[in-house]
Amino acid sequence: MKKHLMSPGPTPVPEDVLLTMAEPMVHHRTPDFIAKVGKAMEGLQYIFQTENDILIFSSSGTGAMEGAVANILNPDDKALIIRNGKFAERWGEIAESFKTDPIYLDVDWGEICDPDEIKEILNENPDIKAVYTQLTETSTGVVMPIKELGEIIKDTDALLIVDAISGLAGQEFYMDKWNVDICVAGSQKGLMLPPGHAYAAVSDKAWKVIEKNEQPHYYFDWMIYKKKLVGSHKDPFTGSVVHVKGLLKVIDRIKSEGIENMFQRYKVLAEATQNAVKALGLDLFAKAPCDVETSVKIPESVDGKKLTKLMRDKYGFTIAGGQKHVKGKIIRIAHMGYIEAFDVISVIAGLEMVLKELGWDFKVGAGVAAAQQVISEKYKF
Amino acid sequence: MKKHLMSPGPTPVPEDVLLTMAEPMVHHRTPDFIAKVGKAMEGLQYIFQTENDILIFSSSGTGAMEGAVANILNPDDKALIIRNGKFAERWGEIAESFKTDPIYLDVDWGEICDPDEIKEILNENPDIKAVYTQLTETSTGVVMPIKELGEIIKDTDALLIVDAISGLAGQEFYMDKWNVDICVAGSQKGLMLPPGHAYAAVSDKAWKVIEKNEQPHYYFDWMIYKKKLVGSHKDPFTGSVVHVKGLLKVIDRIKSEGIENMFQRYKVLAEATQNAVKALGLDLFAKAPCDVETSVKIPESVDGKKLTKLMRDKYGFTIAGGQKHVKGKIIRIAHMGYIEAFDVISVIAGLEMVLKELGWDFKVGAGVAAAQQVISEKYKF
Repeated sequence: MKKHLMSPGPTPVPEDVLLTMAEPMVHHRTPDFIAKVGKAMEGLQYIFQTENDILIFSSSGTGAMEGAVANILNPDDKALIIRNGKFAERWGEIAESFKTDPIYLDVDWGEICDPDEIKEILNENPDIKAVYTQLTETSTGVVMPIKELGEIIKDTDALLIVDAISGLAGQEFYMDKWNVDICVAGSQKGLMLPPGHAYAAVSDKAWKVIEKNEQPHYYFDWMIYKKKLVGSHKDPFTGSVVHVKGLLKVIDRIKSEGIENMFQRYKVLAEATQNAVKALGLDLFAKAPCDVETSVKIPESVDGKKLTKLMRDKYGFTIAGGQKHVKGKIIRIAHMGYIEAFDVISVIAGLEMVLKELGWDFKVGAGVAAAQQVISEKYKF
Repeated sequence: MKKHLMSPGPTPVPEDVLLTMAEPMVHHRTPDFIAKVGKAMEGLQYIFQTENDILIFSSSGTGAMEGAVANILNPDDKALIIRNGKFAERWGEIAESFKTDPIYLDVDWGEICDPDEIKEILNENPDIKAVYTQLTETSTGVVMPIKELGEIIKDTDALLIVDAISGLAGQEFYMDKWNVDICVAGSQKGLMLPPGHAYAAVSDKAWKVIEKNEQPHYYFDWMIYKKKLVGSHKDPFTGSVVHVKGLLKVIDRIKSEGIENMFQRYKVLAEATQNAVKALGLDLFAKAPCDVETSVKIPESVDGKKLTKLMRDKYGFTIAGGQKHVKGKIIRIAHMGYIEAFDVISVIAGLEMVLKELGWDFKVGAGVAAAQQVISEKYKF
């Protein structure tokens, strides 16, 4: 059976990227490969929309998140963590592991924060060193008001630190224009690569804090990366050669489409998916839905776990269920990375077939028709 | 020009492994993939020759080294580090980063320690929590007396912690029989995979120490891996799916050859390379040469940096030069991983051509003939 990978990471890897990654192995210290690393860093600057320094790690995205905590916060340092999903919670877990002193702004899953509230908290706590949040919270499908947060935070001593692991290269984002100080990302979402690479872009304001950091670390010691990787395009360790090669192919793809066109394309895919599920009588879970995945409430009469299992085992679609307390209660359909219009049409068709099987009452074809309408009106082929 | 990768990592990746890694991306939480992770862990037990728990990390080998320090030593804890090369020094750098209290036994590069001296140091310092060393020290090409060290350390409270990053699956090694408590490895050497995966095998004696560890960490918190990966074959994070798939192919190769046969094969390749360079009038650098690479002193009349450059740019052979204070003074020819008899013949032929060009006086063909003789007598095709 043909497989359709439509989970929010790992996402499908384009065939030309897979084949480039399968070329004979090369050494990581040759002038040719070091030039490739430099080119990859330059390309990432375009994707992050930044002139800041780019760091590349061989790790999962969480490794870059750890670095963005452990290189910034000393023990007992105060940070504000906007906690509205599993990955927001991860910022907190890391901050606690490193014995810092996080303040949590708890927001219900599926909702986002009110920027004014952040302003207030920062006013009341001028010793907050950093505000941690997500561009898109993968566990709930919301997009956070990063631009507004940047406007508030830029004039304070605090740093704005954004996990864009699932959002980068899909959700509209301008690191420099939006005054973000650190942005971390991973390879296996919008960047269309296998998992294994993580990235961080770091502003001068952030480097000034990092230089004074006293936490113990080695593999994720960003000062080592600043010296070796930023300084001379040499990975401090033996990094993932194949990811660098794949990344260059991905950068070519993204540059040739144009990042603004990509943002627009995922916006259309999101609208198509949202309209489709609404046409099936389902409700969106996210109050502020992002463009890279659509989270959908599963009615109580439908077995959510069975739904994702049938989608995968019977029809070949890997979508995601809910995590933690929304397990079985929501599904998440990703439209990030190497996902195009007819992938969305297909997954909606599959979803309709499974919903029918599970006894949900709706007009067969209504979802597909709704998606088709948005796509034929707005999608640029 | 055809390229010959004969550096001590990254090493060539077999073609079938590359193609398996280039298959369409799969999700990391499907039952099928989770079963693959379990199978990979079982295969690694065979390769490490252990019944201990296996951990898999998406990182370079250094990530596993960091874990083997930070999960064992609390601040101010005492450890003994046998320091006789660049990677031995790395143990020390990590131990110092985590504010522990390492004792160094400094040994000249190219030499190994006397096990009796270790016994003495342990007797004098019963509070040493762990002894850190290498199976093979990549920067110098020596093999350490791990079996003898295991005999000494097993009856103490200390742990024997071995970096087998360049040695595993090439240099003779039996984790359990030799009483090793923690062994770390990387994907890009004897395991014939691209860089990006690291491994650790952990004994019960070591887990008892790890459970009490108080260092701050998250991504390399081995207790999380024990719970999720050992417990249910789930990577705690989104790990490198392609490396797991490649690893299964490599395990098939290693099992089908048999680990003892592999040890024997690399022993023959080492002897062939050693005899070849001696026949060219060159001296070995390592006093106790390992089986996975041959380090060779470059005579003062020959420009060592030019030698490696010519090997690469003119003839397509990537071999390694020296690191740190032996830069330009030694070369290192790797015969680990997917390197077979005629690769060694070829690299010696290339070396002869370059040495001639650089004015070294020897009988052309003498090196190749010496290698041929060992191979035809002892190599099992």
